[in-house]
Amino acid sequence: MAELVKGPLDGLRIIDLTRVLSGPFCTMILGDLGADVIKIEPPKGDPVRAQGTMTEGHSGYFAGFNRNKRSVVLDLYSPAGKAALSRLLADADVLVENFRPGTLEKLGLSAGALKALNPRLIVASVNGYGSQGPYVDRPAFDFIAQAMSGFMGVNGAADGPPMRAAPPVSDLVAGIYAAVGILAAVQGRERTGKGQTVEVAMVNGLLSLMAYLSSEYFATNELPQRTGNDHPLVYPYGLFRCSDGQIAVANSHDQILRRFLDTLDLGWVMTDPRYDSNPKRMAAREELRSLIDNRMAGNTQDHWLDVLNAAGVPCGLVQDLAQVFADPQVTAQEMVIETPVQDGPALKVLGFPIKLGSTPCALHRPVPRLGGHTGEVLAEAGLSEAEIAGLG
Amino acid sequence: MAELVKGPLDGLRIIDLTRVLSGPFCTMILGDLGADVIKIEPPKGDPVRAQGTMTEGHSGYFAGFNRNKRSVVLDLYSPAGKAALSRLLADADVLVENFRPGTLEKLGLSAGALKALNPRLIVASVNGYGSQGPYVDRPAFDFIAQAMSGFMGVNGAADGPPMRAAPPVSDLVAGIYAAVGILAAVQGRERTGKGQTVEVAMVNGLLSLMAYLSSEYFATNELPQRTGNDHPLVYPYGLFRCSDGQIAVANSHDQILRRFLDTLDLGWVMTDPRYDSNPKRMAAREELRSLIDNRMAGNTQDHWLDVLNAAGVPCGLVQDLAQVFADPQVTAQEMVIETPVQDGPALKVLGFPIKLGSTPCALHRPVPRLGGHTGEVLAEAGLSEAEIAGLG
Repeated sequence: MAELVKGPLDGLRIIDLTRVLSGPFCTMILGDLGADVIKIEPPKGDPVRAQGTMTEGHSGYFAGFNRNKRSVVLDLYSPAGKAALSRLLADADVLVENFRPGTLEKLGLSAGALKALNPRLIVASVNGYGSQGPYVDRPAFDFIAQAMSGFMGVNGAADGPPMRAAPPVSDLVAGIYAAVGILAAVQGRERTGKGQTVEVAMVNGLLSLMAYLSSEYFATNELPQRTGNDHPLVYPYGLFRCSDGQIAVANSHDQILRRFLDTLDLGWVMTDPRYDSNPKRMAAREELRSLIDNRMAGNTQDHWLDVLNAAGVPCGLVQDLAQVFADPQVTAQEMVIETPVQDGPALKVLGFPIKLGSTPCALHRPVPRLGGHTGEVLAEAGLSEAEIAGLG
Repeated sequence: MAELVKGPLDGLRIIDLTRVLSGPFCTMILGDLGADVIKIEPPKGDPVRAQGTMTEGHSGYFAGFNRNKRSVVLDLYSPAGKAALSRLLADADVLVENFRPGTLEKLGLSAGALKALNPRLIVASVNGYGSQGPYVDRPAFDFIAQAMSGFMGVNGAADGPPMRAAPPVSDLVAGIYAAVGILAAVQGRERTGKGQTVEVAMVNGLLSLMAYLSSEYFATNELPQRTGNDHPLVYPYGLFRCSDGQIAVANSHDQILRRFLDTLDLGWVMTDPRYDSNPKRMAAREELRSLIDNRMAGNTQDHWLDVLNAAGVPCGLVQDLAQVFADPQVTAQEMVIETPVQDGPALKVLGFPIKLGSTPCALHRPVPRLGGHTGEVLAEAGLSEAEIAGLG
């Protein structure tokens, strides 16, 4: 925790009104990069503090989204809480919130009021559907955003139902996008001297990942079909059986496919008149699958991963989380770290996906206990001890 | 296209050596925000130019990843091409590449050489596994990153295989993270005056989305089970049948569940001794499902979406892409736009997920034809007409 190198966002002060997932993920990314994130919590705290399995009374789920933050308890429905928040905002760079649209106004923090308070303030919102349009008042939730965005509809087996992803991808993608938007607005402020609003909707974030699925629909007006783990347009591609389990192989074009088949001593397939084009191979899918599975059954996953990767064929295990966290590459990339927790034990959390060479992401601050920095932060903002005591 | 408002990244110059997906997605996000993205392409061009269905000879797939860029053709294996690239880099803010680790060095662009050329340059890399660790030389591909990161392993039906997501999520999430890292490094440079490296690996990016799945594993050492579209811990939750099709309902906690059941005139369930706790409801899943389906079968999807959303219950359709693109909310959010294409037709592409209030994302430049700006960009960099002609 001894901080020798400051993060690249050192000096950027963020007032964080978010709770649960999308917003806290956004502000944790900014905190990992060195921003001073002040998490404003209601007296009962972010509900995630009470969720997931507790380790010595502390939630690892909460730790995974709230390292590198300070916690200040304010009751935003009380005049003194509102006044303290205003003091903090007057001196901040960014406000982040993930309430339903309209809630800030109800708290007295309309766009106009915020501008009057601090014209340099960047006001970032993460929500479900966006603050414009017919669904503005609908409640949002990750599962619903996965459904409404079309993401579920393209996922799943060819003969199965639409399938959500288990991780809360709509929350998290929106959180990362919000970090991009905030940093772009910070950069823009260098020129204009003025803050502005930033908004990311969960549905829009997931929809933005539709890639060729959307471009093919625009070009052809035909809906993409679900194809499970197979590639819709290329074969052989997918999961194949070694002696001790399956591996995933991505023969994404002919050059890689040739390397794959050569490594299996099946190079003749590419010139055999039954299989010498991708359409023929798609049609002969079952024959080819058994040819390949027969050959791969003669050796182990480890063997095939070694020789195929060495031949330049993208391949890998379908790892469960135990395998992932035992993977030497995951270890080398420091993708599991231990974070200190204020008044609690060190807890394992995921590491930093953004690697910077000179001013890397780091653990600048422990996971805060509820209100662990109320006095410290409010004193920095110029509140007297009496004023701070009056908030309690 | 008349640009009245400059984007927040106006003035930021990005030299983009990336191709296919992860890198081009990163640089498009920065271009949407106003950066000057100069896409360096080999004489044959980014392979995506030739992929997907063509509209009047132009790939919508390419358009969806390459609006707001200029295209310069350089043969980086020729001395003149290398020299021209060096001229561009000397004056740039950011270099982005998504080669396999080590390729930049082979092009003569080692970290030391780049620093000597331009100490303010930020050098960003997107790759599969990261540039440190035992898998550094492995080829990467989205499907493999989904498998290796554990993402596939947690997705899918309880009685089915691990299931990839159809969109190339590992490429795209890494691309968004890279945009965060680049903008953080730009911000850090304000203080230090120096550039640095930024790296995002596809596997790390997806792994970072494991949320409570990873924190529960860390806390309990038990692997998460696949649960398809059901919630692992809460019932009723999931898909329910109306008279004309299913809707998704996320009763994420008791307060919302009470609203849901009240709206269905099933409020008594919450106090019935058979169902008055979540564990009892989990055990009585099939009884409750038929109670609810029977009630919902009495009316349409539209009816239930209206009354449940109004009651504050997160719910929605599992939309296919035709429904998504006809959705009035998606229209109101301008999530489908038309981009001009140099020498080609206007093409539909996805809109901007990041909404900024004062300096919004915009179409600053058409999708470039291959080399459409070679002369213009190299002349700006001070190359003579003869030098530019000599590259051809």
